[in-house]
Amino acid sequence: MQRRNELSKQIGAIKQKLKIDVKDEKVEQDIRTFISKLSNEIGIDPDFAGRLLNILLAESLRLQLNEHHDSIQFESHLAVFMKAKKLESSGKKIIHMEVGEPDYPPPESVRKALSGVFESRQYHYSETKGITKLRTSIAQTIGNHVTTDKVIVTPGGRFAVFAAITSLLTAGDELICIEPAWPAYRECAAFVGSTTNILKTTLDEEWSPNIKKLESMINGNTKMIALNYPNNPTGRILNKKIMEKIVSLAKDHRIYVLSDEVYRDYVFTEFTSVLEYGYEKSIVISSFSKGHAMTGFRVGYAIAEENLIDKMAKVQATALTSVAEPMQYAALAAIADSSAENAKRIKRRLEIISDKLREMSLRFVRPDGAMYIYPELGIGKSDVEFVQKALDLGVAVAPGSGFGDCYTQFIRISACQPDDQLEKGLELLKAAICSC
Amino acid sequence: MQRRNELSKQIGAIKQKLKIDVKDEKVEQDIRTFISKLSNEIGIDPDFAGRLLNILLAESLRLQLNEHHDSIQFESHLAVFMKAKKLESSGKKIIHMEVGEPDYPPPESVRKALSGVFESRQYHYSETKGITKLRTSIAQTIGNHVTTDKVIVTPGGRFAVFAAITSLLTAGDELICIEPAWPAYRECAAFVGSTTNILKTTLDEEWSPNIKKLESMINGNTKMIALNYPNNPTGRILNKKIMEKIVSLAKDHRIYVLSDEVYRDYVFTEFTSVLEYGYEKSIVISSFSKGHAMTGFRVGYAIAEENLIDKMAKVQATALTSVAEPMQYAALAAIADSSAENAKRIKRRLEIISDKLREMSLRFVRPDGAMYIYPELGIGKSDVEFVQKALDLGVAVAPGSGFGDCYTQFIRISACQPDDQLEKGLELLKAAICSC
Repeated sequence: MQRRNELSKQIGAIKQKLKIDVKDEKVEQDIRTFISKLSNEIGIDPDFAGRLLNILLAESLRLQLNEHHDSIQFESHLAVFMKAKKLESSGKKIIHMEVGEPDYPPPESVRKALSGVFESRQYHYSETKGITKLRTSIAQTIGNHVTTDKVIVTPGGRFAVFAAITSLLTAGDELICIEPAWPAYRECAAFVGSTTNILKTTLDEEWSPNIKKLESMINGNTKMIALNYPNNPTGRILNKKIMEKIVSLAKDHRIYVLSDEVYRDYVFTEFTSVLEYGYEKSIVISSFSKGHAMTGFRVGYAIAEENLIDKMAKVQATALTSVAEPMQYAALAAIADSSAENAKRIKRRLEIISDKLREMSLRFVRPDGAMYIYPELGIGKSDVEFVQKALDLGVAVAPGSGFGDCYTQFIRISACQPDDQLEKGLELLKAAICSC
Repeated sequence: MQRRNELSKQIGAIKQKLKIDVKDEKVEQDIRTFISKLSNEIGIDPDFAGRLLNILLAESLRLQLNEHHDSIQFESHLAVFMKAKKLESSGKKIIHMEVGEPDYPPPESVRKALSGVFESRQYHYSETKGITKLRTSIAQTIGNHVTTDKVIVTPGGRFAVFAAITSLLTAGDELICIEPAWPAYRECAAFVGSTTNILKTTLDEEWSPNIKKLESMINGNTKMIALNYPNNPTGRILNKKIMEKIVSLAKDHRIYVLSDEVYRDYVFTEFTSVLEYGYEKSIVISSFSKGHAMTGFRVGYAIAEENLIDKMAKVQATALTSVAEPMQYAALAAIADSSAENAKRIKRRLEIISDKLREMSLRFVRPDGAMYIYPELGIGKSDVEFVQKALDLGVAVAPGSGFGDCYTQFIRISACQPDDQLEKGLELLKAAICSC
């Protein structure tokens, strides 16, 4: 009877935990210990029991993260973009410094490719991993001993992230994410019922992760660490020493490294791809969206060992058969074109923005790459309130909390507008800050 | 002590079941009864306990289905296509009657649309649900009181299926699928850890589902029934009376109806869309791939109540942001074009194939629609062995078991070749059958 009461109590605790506070690590540890004891007592394999618990916790977390994610999405840069579009349709003029979409066109070669698609009948189902010519061209462009069989072409970098995470992680597994970051990694993890553990970084640390903290977060369930450098939203690139330490930790614990390098064409300092560390459990994500200004074509790719590419290909086959063939030919046409001019343009614009932000005495880290600056507001208002105020004045920026819950004192400014528009937009931002 | 032994024994049975025979319904029922009793005894909510069991069973099933799916994939029409391509690259001539991809081009309007995309700058991120103009045009074309907010544009019909199943089903839920059918439904269910229960139909029943059997398969965990008419591979369309019964069963049990109507443009008899029954939990899938011969453009769509479309849009936002904008404009250009000529062409070809199969004394049901005929081989060899023999002779067809495990005495013949090629291909098939 006593045992039965104890059981009920403990199960009650599990249920409470599932409903109320999934992030209380003390309670979680207590439950794990209890489950482990119980499974020994009744003769179940403790791994089996632990997995059972993990799946339940993850299921519950997934639901909570999804709900939570709704509230984040509502305040994301996309939500701001939608609000801005609505204001514009009612006649208001808005300067768009919220979205990460180049204002300049794709290479001219793409125009010709599109015009030739119909005649060349390049509009059929293609191989699941993408047309061979494109995969080979990508491999050659990347170098680093990458061969065709290590490349999969996906509908945008986002689907490459989705395929990597959903094929390698399952319910009960854990992902480590260094924030601030693009929210896609934790969204994809939540989709399969995996938990995301956040390693926070701060402006004072210059957005550099604390390796000791990172190490302490790794446990038996940790399956992957997501890196995003040049970083969206901070523009930070990690130096080689830190990268080496992260990859070395991953190697020691047999953890996948997902390295989202979509901004590798916008780099103003030294940048080392994860590929250079030769770790067989790393997956590099890239895309034609940013470097070649081809966002709407939805052509991205992943580079990894063939066995990982095969797993991702299965997800792609299940979800969407293959990538639109005309878009693959457009990417193939673009790949020979240099994106150096685009990088120069963005670098100059980021300098314009930096100068202005310094005038306004806002704190930020000078970006090493990417297309954004992530300044601290230093005002009484939250990012979301501030963004609304700025919108009222005619400039759209992204709230900082879209890249990590705790960054409610930050905004992301995107350099994807012509110089004169940026300057006008910054004046409006200044006015918004002064009025706070 | 006795109780503890009993527990161990039962848990042993669960583990056995998870590993060995997940489809033994007697064992499954025993375990359910035991879990229900146990949960009452120790004071857990039986629903909670049942869900726990379901998640575990589904997890295990998912792994098994995936493994199983590998073996099916290996013998699918795509695998045959790959083998055929390999033979061709070594100089052999192969007639392709295995894949469901029109040999005729998309409408001419698509050529113009593609050439105009660059100039019109129609290459940006679009709304998650698709560009409004296309959604509105689809709504207008479909009729049946469909409005823009009930439409989501997806990268192919397959992603619409994926988004519907992964947003509405979760681990532990059950999908009912009437076979033979396109394997995508059960593949997507397996992806989220849901179980697929198969309602088998036979040639003798003229591929019509037994409604009593269907009803007996529905339980508290049943969340969705997948319909695929005009059917791939049989070409069968269900009559209105049977459709009414199915929708009525679904209504009674509050089950989603996923109706894949991608072949609705290829219909040679009366066809009633599920939309006409006005059931708010139905989701219709369609695509530009078949009717407009636009397979490689990857533009499909789903039609459902707005709350369901919103859920699917969340999956789309998580997995791939939006559909390639140039492809959406190509579809928009094509939508005004009639697919009546394509339907006539396929009907004529199916008649050519039917005549020939009758000469060969093969049994089959005359197709009411779609692009295929699914004859019974009536030979000593399995479908897979036969397909290999046919390939050696120079004609590729799809093995019947790719559309349901038990159909190893069937093949699927596709009408996507010019008449003269079809006739040659059928001669080769005849030779293959005679040699068996």
